[in-house]
Amino acid sequence: MARIAVVAGDGIGPEVVAQALKVLDAVHPGIETTRYDLGAARYHRTGEVLPDAVLTELAGHDAILLGAVGDPSVPPGVLERGLLLKLRFAFDQYVNLRPSRLWPGVPGPLANVKPGEVDLVVVREGTEGLYAGAGGVLHRDTPAEVATEESLNTRHGVERVVRDAFARAARRERRKVTLVHKTNVLTHAGSLWARAFEAVAAEHPDVTTEYQHVDAAAMFLVTQPQRYDVVVTDNLFGDILTDIAAAVTGGIGLAASGSINPDGTYPSMFEPVHGSAPDIAGKGLADPVAAVLSAALLLDQLGDADAAARVTAAVAVELANRTPGVPLRTEEVGDRLAAHAVA
Amino acid sequence: MARIAVVAGDGIGPEVVAQALKVLDAVHPGIETTRYDLGAARYHRTGEVLPDAVLTELAGHDAILLGAVGDPSVPPGVLERGLLLKLRFAFDQYVNLRPSRLWPGVPGPLANVKPGEVDLVVVREGTEGLYAGAGGVLHRDTPAEVATEESLNTRHGVERVVRDAFARAARRERRKVTLVHKTNVLTHAGSLWARAFEAVAAEHPDVTTEYQHVDAAAMFLVTQPQRYDVVVTDNLFGDILTDIAAAVTGGIGLAASGSINPDGTYPSMFEPVHGSAPDIAGKGLADPVAAVLSAALLLDQLGDADAAARVTAAVAVELANRTPGVPLRTEEVGDRLAAHAVA
Ligand SMILES: CC(C)[C@H](C(=O)O)[C@@H](O)C(=O)O
Ligand SMILES: CC(C)[C@H](C(=O)O)[C@@H](O)C(=O)O
Repeated sequence: MARIAVVAGDGIGPEVVAQALKVLDAVHPGIETTRYDLGAARYHRTGEVLPDAVLTELAGHDAILLGAVGDPSVPPGVLERGLLLKLRFAFDQYVNLRPSRLWPGVPGPLANVKPGEVDLVVVREGTEGLYAGAGGVLHRDTPAEVATEESLNTRHGVERVVRDAFARAARRERRKVTLVHKTNVLTHAGSLWARAFEAVAAEHPDVTTEYQHVDAAAMFLVTQPQRYDVVVTDNLFGDILTDIAAAVTGGIGLAASGSINPDGTYPSMFEPVHGSAPDIAGKGLADPVAAVLSAALLLDQLGDADAAARVTAAVAVELANRTPGVPLRTEEVGDRLAAHAVA
Repeated sequence: MARIAVVAGDGIGPEVVAQALKVLDAVHPGIETTRYDLGAARYHRTGEVLPDAVLTELAGHDAILLGAVGDPSVPPGVLERGLLLKLRFAFDQYVNLRPSRLWPGVPGPLANVKPGEVDLVVVREGTEGLYAGAGGVLHRDTPAEVATEESLNTRHGVERVVRDAFARAARRERRKVTLVHKTNVLTHAGSLWARAFEAVAAEHPDVTTEYQHVDAAAMFLVTQPQRYDVVVTDNLFGDILTDIAAAVTGGIGLAASGSINPDGTYPSMFEPVHGSAPDIAGKGLADPVAAVLSAALLLDQLGDADAAARVTAAVAVELANRTPGVPLRTEEVGDRLAAHAVA
């Protein structure tokens, strides 16, 4: 029986998580959930972001389902570094998985891209690079001030995420992996990434490979998103590229993500890419699809590929039947998705 | 009399530069040009990228006009680090200026954005950040390998580019500056940028300001590019965002750029954002508009705002009259632009 830690979080987090749990319950009965109160609200109430005791408890679960944390009232960095990134690093979630599909029925922003044509997944490194938190400030608030940020990249860290990307590509129809970096400027890290990529590619003669600079990839995601299958890239590039991929496929309102520890040593975490959206919180207007798709990624991780596929199929039906402009009700969407997924 | 160094470069570089010079000559007669043979071809012939003597000679000019350098046969980094970035750093070109407009007549990729609605300029920092070249590799090709890249940011360097952005915004209609960074993760550099931005903003009560994380900005450039007026950001973020801005306004085929030393201590450099496009080189099919718009930026820098405006207006006429799908002839476009610009 799977043990899931649930962090509903702030704003629309609790509303969308409720729907994700409803769907999970329908397709994979018997999940045991434990709630953890973390996020902006808790921070304001107690000053705590992620107590060590909670981190230890979370570690005992099979996976974490997160809604959204954050609020404009919390200073930048507090919840990001203290909670989200802390979990990614502490639980060695080195595969940050972000699929993007242009679902039939969803009005995308691109005039020349038809529904169904975009189906890509970004495998973003999750535990290294500029996210390492290595940097500092000297001579603060003087004309001599200098601030640094260091990107740390290890062969260990890069090779394992590249390996994961190739394994995923090998299971997909097009079997193509695009490495995105900036080897012409970031020559040191770029060289490590390129060499690790080449080494893993040699083990996968059946997988097509290509390389693109990050600026070119950002452009092609807009002009030709159809060209991508699996994209593997570093932590910061992945942060940016996945938001572009989300934008061209209908917005972050539909984007799911998994912060995955493929080794299973620690729990993986699944969460919609969207934020807590305080402006619409509590109104029952939030779209739970991103949370439900994140739950589908969670099911995959638990090994229940069949249930994951049924949830994804239910989302496809839901989106195909939407009338643009008609407001949706969070609960009703959840009900429909749960019903479709078991049918 | 202005003295311009011309680096036509590789591939389509010479073709598009010829048109830019034709237009310059028409609107601002008497420019004295000196040709410098730099780029992939020279590198292959002589092994030289940018001899010191050439660098010294270039320094004696009022500006540099560059076509495109590069070829797939040159290893990544050689011309980028050795020529383009070398010039930006040696000539302290700290303002990397990249305007993006969706011109009437140009089919953009976004379904909901109408021609004329997008008119933004990215002021990208050009001499700091991850482009500093600070980094290294240890234990190469062993499992213990580590590679670093360091982003170096000084108050001096950040404040001056932010100041330039505000000065530009103050001269524009909407008078708005958006700072883009990633303050929630890159807390050290982000804090320096945010504080420098705040300090300069206080001197410009007439300019509206906003802040966005780079991932959000990448998304909004796709979903709502109309919202931007002046965007100021660091070197690497600017590299990525300007390619997105180019993509949503019809592609890098139309994108101009200036690497500017506003102090006038060193020459500024103007170049189309596109590359050398070896596949269409020599066929007379390259669109010279980006090179011609770069020449307009050059005219602005020389203080001939009137000529710059006439060139820009000529481009508007040219683009409005194009029939999508009809191939263009590089020379004919140059002839038309020159004729319009003097009319
Ligand atoms: C909130 C922030 C720390 C995070 C990131 O930068 O990774 C977010 O943008 C994301 O993409 O999950
Ligand atoms: C060629 C490369 C070094 C350069 C950059 O990264 O700045 C290019 O992408 C650009 O935007 O001018």
